[in-house]
Amino acid sequence: MPTITLLTDFGIRGIYVGAMKGVIASLCPAANVVDLTHDVTPQAIGEGAFLLDCAYRFFPADTIHVAVVDPGVGTARRAIALDLPGIGRFIGPDNGLFTPLLLAHPAPDARVIANPAFSIARLGGTISATFHGRDHFAPAAATLASGADFATIGPRIDGSTLARLPQFWATVGADGYLRGEIVHIDRFGNLITNIRRDALAALTAAERKTVRVTGGGHVCQGLIDTYGARVAGEIVALIGSGETLEIARVNGRADRREDGSPIVLGESVSVAPTRSRGELP
Amino acid sequence: MPTITLLTDFGIRGIYVGAMKGVIASLCPAANVVDLTHDVTPQAIGEGAFLLDCAYRFFPADTIHVAVVDPGVGTARRAIALDLPGIGRFIGPDNGLFTPLLLAHPAPDARVIANPAFSIARLGGTISATFHGRDHFAPAAATLASGADFATIGPRIDGSTLARLPQFWATVGADGYLRGEIVHIDRFGNLITNIRRDALAALTAAERKTVRVTGGGHVCQGLIDTYGARVAGEIVALIGSGETLEIARVNGRADRREDGSPIVLGESVSVAPTRSRGELP
Amino acid sequence: MPTITLLTDFGIRGIYVGAMKGVIASLCPAANVVDLTHDVTPQAIGEGAFLLDCAYRFFPADTIHVAVVDPGVGTARRAIALDLPGIGRFIGPDNGLFTPLLLAHPAPDARVIANPAFSIARLGGTISATFHGRDHFAPAAATLASGADFATIGPRIDGSTLARLPQFWATVGADGYLRGEIVHIDRFGNLITNIRRDALAALTAAERKTVRVTGGGHVCQGLIDTYGARVAGEIVALIGSGETLEIARVNGRADRREDGSPIVLGESVSVAPTRSRGELP
Repeated sequence: MPTITLLTDFGIRGIYVGAMKGVIASLCPAANVVDLTHDVTPQAIGEGAFLLDCAYRFFPADTIHVAVVDPGVGTARRAIALDLPGIGRFIGPDNGLFTPLLLAHPAPDARVIANPAFSIARLGGTISATFHGRDHFAPAAATLASGADFATIGPRIDGSTLARLPQFWATVGADGYLRGEIVHIDRFGNLITNIRRDALAALTAAERKTVRVTGGGHVCQGLIDTYGARVAGEIVALIGSGETLEIARVNGRADRREDGSPIVLGESVSVAPTRSRGELP
Repeated sequence: MPTITLLTDFGIRGIYVGAMKGVIASLCPAANVVDLTHDVTPQAIGEGAFLLDCAYRFFPADTIHVAVVDPGVGTARRAIALDLPGIGRFIGPDNGLFTPLLLAHPAPDARVIANPAFSIARLGGTISATFHGRDHFAPAAATLASGADFATIGPRIDGSTLARLPQFWATVGADGYLRGEIVHIDRFGNLITNIRRDALAALTAAERKTVRVTGGGHVCQGLIDTYGARVAGEIVALIGSGETLEIARVNGRADRREDGSPIVLGESVSVAPTRSRGELP
Repeated sequence: MPTITLLTDFGIRGIYVGAMKGVIASLCPAANVVDLTHDVTPQAIGEGAFLLDCAYRFFPADTIHVAVVDPGVGTARRAIALDLPGIGRFIGPDNGLFTPLLLAHPAPDARVIANPAFSIARLGGTISATFHGRDHFAPAAATLASGADFATIGPRIDGSTLARLPQFWATVGADGYLRGEIVHIDRFGNLITNIRRDALAALTAAERKTVRVTGGGHVCQGLIDTYGARVAGEIVALIGSGETLEIARVNGRADRREDGSPIVLGESVSVAPTRSRGELP
């Protein structure tokens, strides 16, 4: 029983996700469908890419991951399928949603989804101009899940032509500051960044206690290990479960400034250079 | 493995939906349960009816669809089951939720759910006055899914006595205007109407480019094919994935007026008559 | 195919729940995973305990219930598993989440989850400091579901040492008033309390019509049986589907005071003593 995951920005107020599951139930009744999330910020490709990257690695390697954050639906952007043996298969628009995946695994078998036998045509429908999740991506996933040969989905494309978002992970600037941004704000109001654990690995134990993290109007001194390490209400910085830096308030929310204004996706976060090294890696 | 879909206005903050799934897991462990949505606007029977109509057609014909938007729970309104071979089976309150289904398929085998063997009594419970989703509709669906004969669910009722919402789809007024209303607002802030593609089918290509659509304080000139056809921020009208007219803002939201006030379900939408015809169909 | 339920305060904006399901799909692909809710108010252990108590009884007795409302993640609080034959198995933090379960069933086989073979280590990962849902509780549930012997999960602990929230259900004060609180506010704005049907069982039929219920700024005279018993807009008190007292507004919301301010979890609700008895039980 193959697993198909769904990650979209469709929300759960309507039946967009339900219709995708109907198509899958019609084409591959035995598929185990799992929602990753449908609450990606509308049209936020970068957040979708980040969240997919956090999740796919916990699924079996034969899982088919469908990701649809697709502001360009109905335009010339390609519909693609990626095969990474031992990792998973991935289906969605070619708009950068798979950037971190491609950074980690640069050479997938990449295909344009072109064969109508992988579309809603299999159920007698036609591909709409506005809902490729239902008409293109869900049928492609269900058709693969029911055993179709990946190579028949469409012609191979050059992996170097796949869309990639620029500057996906944080990097060190000329001034030695590690500069990233907020890529997701979770339900607890934690500010999740694109600053990876690796980028902080060279810090000494002493530096971990003193390094200054700035973002969303907050300034934190030192990295802690878990929320319980500080008192309720304090703003802290730590490596979160997605293996990147996050800014949190112990037993509270960190997603508002002192003046009450909301902090939003894309705001910058920086880590000051430490004394022992002119820069962070 | 039969599929059971659930469409409710219960929301996901509590365990109302979870309790329904528990009942189904207890009575028919092999059922494949799929959420259509649980975020129908509270007690908005018309929106529930519209959303169910958009979704059921994508599921296998042996699917059992449970729909519960039920402000009259505990009153004399009937609990019903509808059998439409080749289409699906439908379970819920007799309050108009199945209006578009009955408009398309006027002669189902319709039954009152009367047999206690199709209720929570099978698990030793009694039917509460406030939660028929758990106590009546979920057990009925699970009992059918586990193979019970549809005819044993309760006595047949005359299809003409089933509750129907008035004027479900938009119609043409005496002035030649096609007049409908907003029946759903999706997560992207698109205003979905009850004006069907068919009602606009007679427009010529030239008329499609010039026809005037008015709704929610917006005025659109012409119908486009997909969001990408216009520039970001523009208000547009198009036939959406549910095969009805929608008003959208390219890469933005259309659910607020210029003054910031929210647009709500039930607001009127009209399509002006075209020159070539005194009226729209 | 064993059922695993999930109840958390993780919300559905991110992929926390999706990652848990990935772990389960990797360790026990045949498990039937059911969401109870992920919208427990952040860190509201009492609300989580109440909602779990409303839901678990509708599931098969071999179900494994995973509950994660865990403000103390990463601290010394224990991770526990409870086995109650004929009832279910329960997994989560030892912080009071299982209080009503333990009040009803005081003598489970209780264990600390200590065996690394019941953790993310089975997938080659390490237990993070901030996400035991993914790294500890989901793997433990999946490992049990795939047939592991409960006794191997870790050493038995004395049930009397399990964390319990104080005063979980409403009680009668010295003045004869039954005093409880709001433990959940549902999607319809109904105020659900911890005043159980049993506590009101001694009321006579006449007393049921006149007893005074006060809470959230509302005062209700008498208990009704179902919403439809009164006119739209009226504030009413009734025994809800979770078998406790709730305050509701017919066809409306009860979660705001007259002045528009929101009513919140933990606000007190009282039932006045009745003439026939000096006090309520």
